[in-house]
Amino acid sequence: MRSITSRDNPAVKRLHGLATSARDRRSVGQTLLDGAHLVRAALDADWPLRELVVSDQGLAREEVAALVRRCEKLAQLHLTDALFAHVSPVDTPSGVLAVIDLPESAPLEVFDDSLLVLDGVQDAGNLGTILRTAAAAGLRDVLLTAGCAQAWSPRVLRAGMGGHFCLRIHEQVEVAQVLKNYAGQILATGLGAGARIVYDCDLRGPVAWLFGAEGRGLSAEVAALARGMVVIPMPGAVESLNVGAAAAICLFEQVRQRRTSGPA
Amino acid sequence: MRSITSRDNPAVKRLHGLATSARDRRSVGQTLLDGAHLVRAALDADWPLRELVVSDQGLAREEVAALVRRCEKLAQLHLTDALFAHVSPVDTPSGVLAVIDLPESAPLEVFDDSLLVLDGVQDAGNLGTILRTAAAAGLRDVLLTAGCAQAWSPRVLRAGMGGHFCLRIHEQVEVAQVLKNYAGQILATGLGAGARIVYDCDLRGPVAWLFGAEGRGLSAEVAALARGMVVIPMPGAVESLNVGAAAAICLFEQVRQRRTSGPA
Repeated sequence: MRSITSRDNPAVKRLHGLATSARDRRSVGQTLLDGAHLVRAALDADWPLRELVVSDQGLAREEVAALVRRCEKLAQLHLTDALFAHVSPVDTPSGVLAVIDLPESAPLEVFDDSLLVLDGVQDAGNLGTILRTAAAAGLRDVLLTAGCAQAWSPRVLRAGMGGHFCLRIHEQVEVAQVLKNYAGQILATGLGAGARIVYDCDLRGPVAWLFGAEGRGLSAEVAALARGMVVIPMPGAVESLNVGAAAAICLFEQVRQRRTSGPA
Repeated sequence: MRSITSRDNPAVKRLHGLATSARDRRSVGQTLLDGAHLVRAALDADWPLRELVVSDQGLAREEVAALVRRCEKLAQLHLTDALFAHVSPVDTPSGVLAVIDLPESAPLEVFDDSLLVLDGVQDAGNLGTILRTAAAAGLRDVLLTAGCAQAWSPRVLRAGMGGHFCLRIHEQVEVAQVLKNYAGQILATGLGAGARIVYDCDLRGPVAWLFGAEGRGLSAEVAALARGMVVIPMPGAVESLNVGAAAAICLFEQVRQRRTSGPA
């Protein structure tokens, strides 16, 4: 394991760039996994790591030491706590980072199973949480429009809690083109004419779920692709949900319906 | 409307303290609502406002100008954009703030309807999102343990999107004491012995839902109060959900079950 104690070391500058700059991540073609949970999730999914980075405080924790042993064939960097804090993408440094390559967008194909379309979701926490929910619900493909946050930024990865490694994430997608020949339902949430209560819809077959940004909702272009509107009944006085909560309710209503019988 | 142009003005210092310091909020006994949506939600709920604060950029927007007209009997402060940014609790100032009194915790009583218990939820975004979800689901009472974030901080209020004004939020609650004589089910999520799939549980009667912090889960003390464990089935390779997503799924499964019939 190589130890670094100077802030002027090129490795420190490189890691700091990956932590703080979307442009650096794109030009280097790499990103950072922050924290033992995320690094472990990547290893469990056989995701290729480039480099492991640990701090003194990290090394003192058994879960980080276990990762160091597990990654013994990997390039390893050891930073002082102060340097680690400098390159950490979070306020409370976790003591362990891994460098991975930014994956290329998975190839687009003709989709025939359920999938999730996110349009203009810019909040990193929301985006990561929804990816985590989609992975837990057993979805395979997530399509992001150009207006979404960078799916592989450290903050989105952190909120995703490993969900990234179980999904095919397609970024900068022209959704209209991709869904043109989609054979299943294409559903958006909202109160449009003909909206049906989500619990009354048959969701056992394939569904392309469309969710838009907090506040603004779907862009007109993506909204036009919906072949049906669903509404989540809200008995309370508050009449809207966070997009992550709405997605969780819809995707797991589909999980519920699919438990008892196969696709319609 | 009073205009302020100097950062040394005591009103600016007071607002900056409310925006940035939990201690200031407690000692002054006030907090800030940030953004037109939240101020409108408070007005719609007849929540008493103390003061309206607007910026030049805010005043130029019709939704803020409408709030100024609607609050004509209220003390109003006008700040330059630079000063407003200084007192705004968010990075992208919204152009309108309202000052409200920190509400006293609602009195504890013998609860007989469904309610939500949050134990040690410290992330402001998660806490606010869950309050919004609870309000949308029609819950009335939310009990927070001492380990939770301050429910009325500007960041939690912002994520709550008005949910606060439809709930009775009880902070620093000794949950064991309060739930001692609760007549309904007391359910925690998790994989403990005897856990049942949430979709197979009869949730039509009153339920006290227990949710813990991301990662750590429930404290031993609160976990011991559960009279049943429920599990959300996850077909995917990721086996955990964000606490806000889990709460949304459980609370809206109860909404779904209650739609078709009254309490069991």
